[in-house]
Amino acid sequence: MKKLINDPLKVADELLEGLVEAYDGQCEKVGTRSIVKKEIPDGKVALLVGGGSGHEPIYHGLVGTNLADGAACGDIFAAPPPDIVLEATQAVDRGNGVLYLYGNYAGDVMNFDIGAELAGDEDIEVRTVLIWDDVCSAPPTEKAKRRGIAGLVPIVKMAGAASQTAKTLDELEAAAKKAVLHTRSVGVSMAPGSIPATGKPTFEIDDDKIGLGMGIHGEPGVGEIPMAKADELTPMMLDLIFKDFEEDAEIDALAEGDEILLLVNSLGATTMMECLICLRKAKAYLADKGVAVYDTMVGPLVTCQEMAGISFSITKLDTELKGYWDPPCESVCYTKL
Amino acid sequence: MKKLINDPLKVADELLEGLVEAYDGQCEKVGTRSIVKKEIPDGKVALLVGGGSGHEPIYHGLVGTNLADGAACGDIFAAPPPDIVLEATQAVDRGNGVLYLYGNYAGDVMNFDIGAELAGDEDIEVRTVLIWDDVCSAPPTEKAKRRGIAGLVPIVKMAGAASQTAKTLDELEAAAKKAVLHTRSVGVSMAPGSIPATGKPTFEIDDDKIGLGMGIHGEPGVGEIPMAKADELTPMMLDLIFKDFEEDAEIDALAEGDEILLLVNSLGATTMMECLICLRKAKAYLADKGVAVYDTMVGPLVTCQEMAGISFSITKLDTELKGYWDPPCESVCYTKL
Repeated sequence: MKKLINDPLKVADELLEGLVEAYDGQCEKVGTRSIVKKEIPDGKVALLVGGGSGHEPIYHGLVGTNLADGAACGDIFAAPPPDIVLEATQAVDRGNGVLYLYGNYAGDVMNFDIGAELAGDEDIEVRTVLIWDDVCSAPPTEKAKRRGIAGLVPIVKMAGAASQTAKTLDELEAAAKKAVLHTRSVGVSMAPGSIPATGKPTFEIDDDKIGLGMGIHGEPGVGEIPMAKADELTPMMLDLIFKDFEEDAEIDALAEGDEILLLVNSLGATTMMECLICLRKAKAYLADKGVAVYDTMVGPLVTCQEMAGISFSITKLDTELKGYWDPPCESVCYTKL
Repeated sequence: MKKLINDPLKVADELLEGLVEAYDGQCEKVGTRSIVKKEIPDGKVALLVGGGSGHEPIYHGLVGTNLADGAACGDIFAAPPPDIVLEATQAVDRGNGVLYLYGNYAGDVMNFDIGAELAGDEDIEVRTVLIWDDVCSAPPTEKAKRRGIAGLVPIVKMAGAASQTAKTLDELEAAAKKAVLHTRSVGVSMAPGSIPATGKPTFEIDDDKIGLGMGIHGEPGVGEIPMAKADELTPMMLDLIFKDFEEDAEIDALAEGDEILLLVNSLGATTMMECLICLRKAKAYLADKGVAVYDTMVGPLVTCQEMAGISFSITKLDTELKGYWDPPCESVCYTKL
């Protein structure tokens, strides 16, 4: 791959410096590898996100107005180590507790948990909400095994709005948990991205196959299926999301009259053209089911380098979640009026 | 290429349907292949953009709040024919004239000009401003030969804001011309995108070469240079923009104390990671020159399918242009608070 980088071992540090610059003064780099908003009001319940680098514009690009207060940034496809989690926690803390909100991967959980312990030693109260929107990574009875994928964008958007008015860490934790419970995703991969340090692909897949439910690093999902047309693949993917809402005892099935958020995400090299063609079919599918789209997001928000692939995320809305969705937000990753 | 499409000959039509859906009711499809805002006030001086499809999210994704009123959409990499330009013109016209604002390509100019004549026959007054920000496509003394590339995003943003308050077509034309005069870009390509109908690449380039100043379809620029590091290539590209402002008799050179807009654009497969690493170096370069960045845009806004490449665009600001930049805007392509 012809990548425009400098030292392949320094990409995570250099991209973070660039990300801070993209905020034109609203954010700053803190410590080894954290990005934090400059203005966080005293007493605010803080929202901290984070995870591996290489998936830009998430996670670190979700710091911003009415979004996260900071992000703890790992190396490429690697969790942030505990000292980085701690430095970010200290930088966002305003005396009223810090909520960690990040994707459910073993490495992230281990490192954020140690970071939380270290923060506890500094008398900072921390609570954790894991994002597990990928319905193909485990059945609804085993949500603790599910991965977090693109659904993290609407989830962090809603938690970010909730954090502006939350009086307590309990309140923000409850809002974030609800946003997670209501958000489900399905992804496919057609071709891998490459690891900047080695130039090697993150996985292999035949030219005539699609990885259905494959994770954003190439983790196994439902299995491989033959390459399909947009209008065949889209309903197949949305069926899996509808089935998951139906089979999950913790939430009602998606039904006629429901309102949802819809995110069509590109994993990198998949063009906006393809996303829009899939979006067209998704809207027709949803209209057939009588499910109304309250707001649509589309584009490369959660990527894995130049991976080719797409995902759909659906958030089932109610009055509370709409209240978290409606306020404007601004960041490098996602902005809405 | 494993593209998620249906009929390769219908991609332009289907992506437009998807784009309309992405607006959740704010825009509608009009006629054969135009997208138009639903609410355009009576008497508004209308702003119409357009061009070939396949470069999503532009041009058609720049229709929106405080942006363009409509777009005339061509087939993949092809200008919209005159009947589509006419249908879009009629749909955005509110009795006070229509400004055409689009990239300077021979096919687009021919088709929009015929469309303008047809609109004249319907008593709609039309004026045209061409976008020619690509400094590598011709010297400053031959601007009529220059192509329009990613600089169109800040230009349409500023013209869109100007169109909200312009009393006359003259006034909007003058604002758009000024935004064009003040905006310059330089791009590079590392690898081609492919044409959806054929799967064929739009151009060829050696694995160890970069096309400096190459156009977004692979048109010739300054020439091929060896593959370079981000920190080597970035100043080389910005030097060309600074040199162009210096050599152009129509505008002052970029000088210490100037304020600019900076856009770091990915042509498709180039990752946000790479854009941010280049942005980091660009900000250091600009700081050295004493030029202040008023606002930064970064991401895949002007693409050519899965082309690998990057461009920098600089808009030299003054009080008038800042006034057009500051208002919020919202669209599928670009949103700011």
